[in-house]
Amino acid sequence: MKRLMLAAVAVAALAIAVPALAQFAKVEDAIRYRQSVMFMQGTHLGRLARMATGRLPYDAKVAAENADILLVITKLPFPAFVDGSDKGDTRAKPEIWKEKDKFMAGANKMQEEVVKLNAAAKSGSVDQLKSAVGAVDKACKACHDDYQKPL
Amino acid sequence: MKRLMLAAVAVAALAIAVPALAQFAKVEDAIRYRQSVMFMQGTHLGRLARMATGRLPYDAKVAAENADILLVITKLPFPAFVDGSDKGDTRAKPEIWKEKDKFMAGANKMQEEVVKLNAAAKSGSVDQLKSAVGAVDKACKACHDDYQKPL
Repeated sequence: MKRLMLAAVAVAALAIAVPALAQFAKVEDAIRYRQSVMFMQGTHLGRLARMATGRLPYDAKVAAENADILLVITKLPFPAFVDGSDKGDTRAKPEIWKEKDKFMAGANKMQEEVVKLNAAAKSGSVDQLKSAVGAVDKACKACHDDYQKPL
Repeated sequence: MKRLMLAAVAVAALAIAVPALAQFAKVEDAIRYRQSVMFMQGTHLGRLARMATGRLPYDAKVAAENADILLVITKLPFPAFVDGSDKGDTRAKPEIWKEKDKFMAGANKMQEEVVKLNAAAKSGSVDQLKSAVGAVDKACKACHDDYQKPL
């Protein structure tokens, strides 16, 4: 039953369409929204990373929960890169808007790896989890290297 | 098919257990995490509110998407009220930790209203959506009044 529900959330998360969500009251809200969800992504991925590397006790249930949350929230940052939100309190580089297709290809790559991470987190194998966390981390870093101003 | 998936995400969201997630690397991270998810909640609820009151065009699909996201993320703030996180850059009052049962009862009430909001968002009725958004907003405000320091 639990496995069925976890599979259901995986399928349903993919069904959440994204572009129609691009409706922020103001540009500052879009910036703060994407910073918020990026921080949450880091929290949940970091928890899986710590579990995969033994810095946190491995717990298959907790791993699955965190992976399910990632499946939903990793779809949320991208509609918040609205036009005009390259200005203000943001580390987003203007290249995001100049190379939107390339940027979104990177986002899609990350989301594909998050789907694989979800399966790995439910496999019960710490090795599979470790490998899948690494692949997601690499996909995150690829875009951050290209599109995020350094601190 | 779409209705099935939306129902699936609703059921699956309820299956995401919460207490085991209380694993933050440091207290500051827990504070920033709950501020992040609170801001996201406000964004998605605000979008539904604007739709329900005609400030944003009503779109049944967008309403359902936002309600599905709320169903998942409204479970996430509460494990982040970890011990010791009443200090620091937070508006959380110490009463949260002194009255944890009452605080969590308020959180549960809000989550119950979010489940009803999900059904209302999928009913196709703007009136039902408006009423359900109001009930969630009231549940949010009840806890904020009691447990959040004013700006």
